[in-house]
Amino acid sequence: VTHDYLRDGAAIYERSFAIIRAEADLSRFAPLEAHVAVRMIHAAGLVPLAEVIRFGLGFADAARAALMAGAPVLCDSEMVERGITRARLPAGNDVVCTLRDPRTAALAERLGTTRSAAAIELWGERLAGSLVVIGNAPTALFHLIDAIAAGGPRPAAIIGAPVGFVGAAESKAALAESSIGVPWLIVEGRLGGSAIASAAVNALASDRL
Amino acid sequence: VTHDYLRDGAAIYERSFAIIRAEADLSRFAPLEAHVAVRMIHAAGLVPLAEVIRFGLGFADAARAALMAGAPVLCDSEMVERGITRARLPAGNDVVCTLRDPRTAALAERLGTTRSAAAIELWGERLAGSLVVIGNAPTALFHLIDAIAAGGPRPAAIIGAPVGFVGAAESKAALAESSIGVPWLIVEGRLGGSAIASAAVNALASDRL
Repeated sequence: VTHDYLRDGAAIYERSFAIIRAEADLSRFAPLEAHVAVRMIHAAGLVPLAEVIRFGLGFADAARAALMAGAPVLCDSEMVERGITRARLPAGNDVVCTLRDPRTAALAERLGTTRSAAAIELWGERLAGSLVVIGNAPTALFHLIDAIAAGGPRPAAIIGAPVGFVGAAESKAALAESSIGVPWLIVEGRLGGSAIASAAVNALASDRL
Repeated sequence: VTHDYLRDGAAIYERSFAIIRAEADLSRFAPLEAHVAVRMIHAAGLVPLAEVIRFGLGFADAARAALMAGAPVLCDSEMVERGITRARLPAGNDVVCTLRDPRTAALAERLGTTRSAAAIELWGERLAGSLVVIGNAPTALFHLIDAIAAGGPRPAAIIGAPVGFVGAAESKAALAESSIGVPWLIVEGRLGGSAIASAAVNALASDRL
């Protein structure tokens, strides 16, 4: 006797999204924001995530416009990079992760920081106008905020969703409270991670709302 | 003025694990199980995950022995595959994901199931004695259980951590209740995902307990 279960991928997605929309309070989100939030909740398997997703002013439009214009997607971890569905990106956008670049380890040593933070330095001029996705390392998000505040290249939008117990909540609060003026999406507190972050990108890239 | 934050990767890990051990109730776990659970909680940023992590009899020893013996690690998604730290595996173990194998799409069509479930068929004889890691698709876990029950190759251990709203809870309960006799680790309910699943593998592969 084998198990009886839904085997149609599209039907599974539809039923999942219907359950999330029935259970989650999405009333404080604009339609495009709600679309993104549903995908993030889906990736986490956690309806209460809705309560800690925060969109800064103009984020959804800025991030979507950047993707449509072919902006690169710059990721702090390989899991984030791998979670982004290339085929769904609207303009053959580059998806970049420099964490395993051969220069990263020495750069981290020299800067006295983590490899995740040092890897951001290797984005260079690609950072200007990009969509940045931080789904793992608080140090990467802190480093990015400070680099922009110091006059470095400015991304079009930042997804700040590092996860964990040391610095994650603080780095995301710092992004939301900063005066760098780059539109942001954050997950407040400890929650976050590569699946949630890449789901936000996939939602922004999707033309089905 | 730049932000002040902890920049030492090893110190961040240590402080994170100390916070988790202080906040989570790990009393029902054996020492190796607790070590794995701490890493899973760390990946999720969620202390209450401790309440839904369940180890079947003999799982931790069976999974660890398989890794030490050089067993391949078979993954249902590329994010899981990417989340496993190759350098930490004790025997140069292969890490395999067949989701993007060119044969998978046609096989899914023929079997009337998802690509994630069909991809499991391509593991073939590598499944015997392997460590299986399901971190995304409930259909993959259901398909695996049924294939083993039907007399297919038997893995050494199964990590069952698919995430989501349709079939995830049911597929994990099916694994825990099945009579296939393969040691398992599950995350009960909707929670799970690639980061949690790959963290379990990384913990089992680590020699620091």
